[in-house]
Amino acid sequence: MNPIHHQIERQKTHRVVIVGGGFGGLYAARKLGKEPVALTLIDRRNFHLFQPLLYQVATGGLSPGDIASPLRAVLKRQKNTRVIKGTVTDIDPTQQIVYADGEAFPYDTLILATGARHHYFGNEQWEAHAPGLKTVEDALQIRQRIFEAFERAERETDPEKRRALMTFVVIGGGPTGVELAGALGELARFTLKDDFRRVNTREAQIILLEGADRLLLTYPPGLSDKARQALERLGVRVRTHTLVTAVEEGVVRVKSGEKVWEIPAHTILWAAGVKTAGLSESLAEKTAARLDNAGRIFVEPDLSVPGFPNIFVIGDLANYAHSPRGGQGGKPLPGIAPVAMQQGRYVARLIYRRLRGKKMKPFRYFDKGNLAVIGRNAAVADFGFVRFSGWPAWLLWVFVHIAYLIEYDNRLLVLVQWAANYFTRKRGARLITGEDG
Amino acid sequence: MNPIHHQIERQKTHRVVIVGGGFGGLYAARKLGKEPVALTLIDRRNFHLFQPLLYQVATGGLSPGDIASPLRAVLKRQKNTRVIKGTVTDIDPTQQIVYADGEAFPYDTLILATGARHHYFGNEQWEAHAPGLKTVEDALQIRQRIFEAFERAERETDPEKRRALMTFVVIGGGPTGVELAGALGELARFTLKDDFRRVNTREAQIILLEGADRLLLTYPPGLSDKARQALERLGVRVRTHTLVTAVEEGVVRVKSGEKVWEIPAHTILWAAGVKTAGLSESLAEKTAARLDNAGRIFVEPDLSVPGFPNIFVIGDLANYAHSPRGGQGGKPLPGIAPVAMQQGRYVARLIYRRLRGKKMKPFRYFDKGNLAVIGRNAAVADFGFVRFSGWPAWLLWVFVHIAYLIEYDNRLLVLVQWAANYFTRKRGARLITGEDG
Repeated sequence: MNPIHHQIERQKTHRVVIVGGGFGGLYAARKLGKEPVALTLIDRRNFHLFQPLLYQVATGGLSPGDIASPLRAVLKRQKNTRVIKGTVTDIDPTQQIVYADGEAFPYDTLILATGARHHYFGNEQWEAHAPGLKTVEDALQIRQRIFEAFERAERETDPEKRRALMTFVVIGGGPTGVELAGALGELARFTLKDDFRRVNTREAQIILLEGADRLLLTYPPGLSDKARQALERLGVRVRTHTLVTAVEEGVVRVKSGEKVWEIPAHTILWAAGVKTAGLSESLAEKTAARLDNAGRIFVEPDLSVPGFPNIFVIGDLANYAHSPRGGQGGKPLPGIAPVAMQQGRYVARLIYRRLRGKKMKPFRYFDKGNLAVIGRNAAVADFGFVRFSGWPAWLLWVFVHIAYLIEYDNRLLVLVQWAANYFTRKRGARLITGEDG
Repeated sequence: MNPIHHQIERQKTHRVVIVGGGFGGLYAARKLGKEPVALTLIDRRNFHLFQPLLYQVATGGLSPGDIASPLRAVLKRQKNTRVIKGTVTDIDPTQQIVYADGEAFPYDTLILATGARHHYFGNEQWEAHAPGLKTVEDALQIRQRIFEAFERAERETDPEKRRALMTFVVIGGGPTGVELAGALGELARFTLKDDFRRVNTREAQIILLEGADRLLLTYPPGLSDKARQALERLGVRVRTHTLVTAVEEGVVRVKSGEKVWEIPAHTILWAAGVKTAGLSESLAEKTAARLDNAGRIFVEPDLSVPGFPNIFVIGDLANYAHSPRGGQGGKPLPGIAPVAMQQGRYVARLIYRRLRGKKMKPFRYFDKGNLAVIGRNAAVADFGFVRFSGWPAWLLWVFVHIAYLIEYDNRLLVLVQWAANYFTRKRGARLITGEDG
């Protein structure tokens, strides 16, 4: 920090810039709402998205508005906070400036929380045939594919083509893949069963592909088995030990040991990998921070960038090798909402303490447990001390998720929607929109 | 009808094809659900849209899923009915065949209910600058423009440009224009007032332009005055006697008597005219039916096409010169939901009676009254025998509209959403989506 800058510094309020309004950025912003800082939150979108429920938008159970909260509305009472809808194009860590759409935003402390996008790791050409699920647009595109497939199957006279239209392949057996496959099973077996005249939606094939030996790798093996059983009850075919070798228009090529075959399928969904956006590479160049192969930045025990104690990286953008005993040294924390939220709150508290000349212990993740849902009534839960599955886990899942929705009226609405969906098995939000008017 | 066809006819169930799943087509289909007919409903979309609430989607109060019902779900219990998602490309009234995406659908009775799109009457180049509001995509595009305008105003430093960004022009003072302008007034004056830091949303200019001497021409003049007053209380500037002479990027040129001026505005919305889709022209060529200048087909007293007693035209596609004393001879019925619903039910009943060899009296519209809403708490109602305005009309409007939503769970949801919006003045569904990911 040069002397002139330092002089200006003393006269002014401490400026915090947060890039990204996901779980990490938004929780940091809320925690700093009453602190003596001038806070700027920059996001490309004007809303916070509750990503754990995005698969419900993709399968017609919820509308985008149900799981989104306008960032300005969430932060309107924070008089120290302004929200900028813009795209960050560059960061200058020496001058301490963030550039968004050509405008300069100087900072004293920077929090980067731009998250990750789905990723195909060298097979980017797969994306056109197997969309991933990270944004509202992704969800609406997937919704369109799913419901359009049934519509086309109803009009298709060639049995082979009809079979491909009625085949849905989900690639990746993590929580998103499991939840998507479960929702598709529900849809085909129950929701749509009386809706068509020529096709029997219960004959739809839903295939979940996973390269490892079990689903939900971050959960204990017992719960992976429960999840598999719940999916199979919904008619989902679970194929573990199965690697995808190619995705083309209407076909997935797979390999399991020596065996190689192909699955003709109109709808192929990608839930197998994520990578951070371009910002991390540009930051790494300027700060000499190291990146892992998903583009995540290796951070210090206090979540700062090595050599830059006033730049913090949180959420999916950070690689924090967490030790269950606290501090670093174990496996990197997974890219899930609770990690991002806790990191956001931690950094906010660190800034608060630093402004008062106090130190802060390294970040420590408190694992409140994991939940994944498989259709109506079935879920698996892992809280370390207790693990359970079936409908108690499902009910818990519903309430935990709804409790975390940012806005009160969203919560109420989603609860009503959920109750209605539960009792009627309806999925009213299955509009095919977007392509033709 | 040729003899061979007649022979086949006697062996088979009477085939009814309905084109269009709006209010007219859907109400006809529901009424025919238990009749001894083979019913096919063809629509380009997989859902019925509750168009009277579309302006709420455009202004962020509701999500598309809240006002849409999947056609298959609505009709699933009707075993005599199949739904086809497809675009009707041609009609052969002699062979009695409808073609959709190359597939032939033979009919014994045909009901055409394809509705209307907004229209610019020779000024189609205006559409790019002043979108209209007829589809979900229209509503989401308008939503994006409105909220993007505020976002850009917040970042704009040039006061003149900022003023244009904060100017919203609605062209057309019918129910849609009045409701849009009222919702914009609400938004700027209340919902968004604490959301921005640089701009004061209460300084936004909302201008409603109408060529005639008053708003809501189809209502009695007293209610037009009430509507104007309610809009002005919300800060809307109402300009009657004002003609739009040109719409260009960011500017509307207007004329009032001798006076000519221009309004710089980033957001220009079109609510001034509709025209039927291409199908009516192609039908007119083949049947010698006459069209009015909005493309509507002049129909017989029983809503059939002259010379084709088995082709019916209903809803926005029909020009039915209704006499208040019953029968024809007065002004054409307006393009509103109650007209379409009643016509749909009438034709269904006519088919039912005709199958039993019975005659049917000419169609007669029963006017249950008109309602238009102006922001929270204000509406105008005209029931012929009684006219009122203010919050009783508003409350009535809310309940009437919700009662007409097709699906039970939609009704409950919209009611909860409405209650939440009412008490919080929030508009949670204000996602800017669509353009960049």
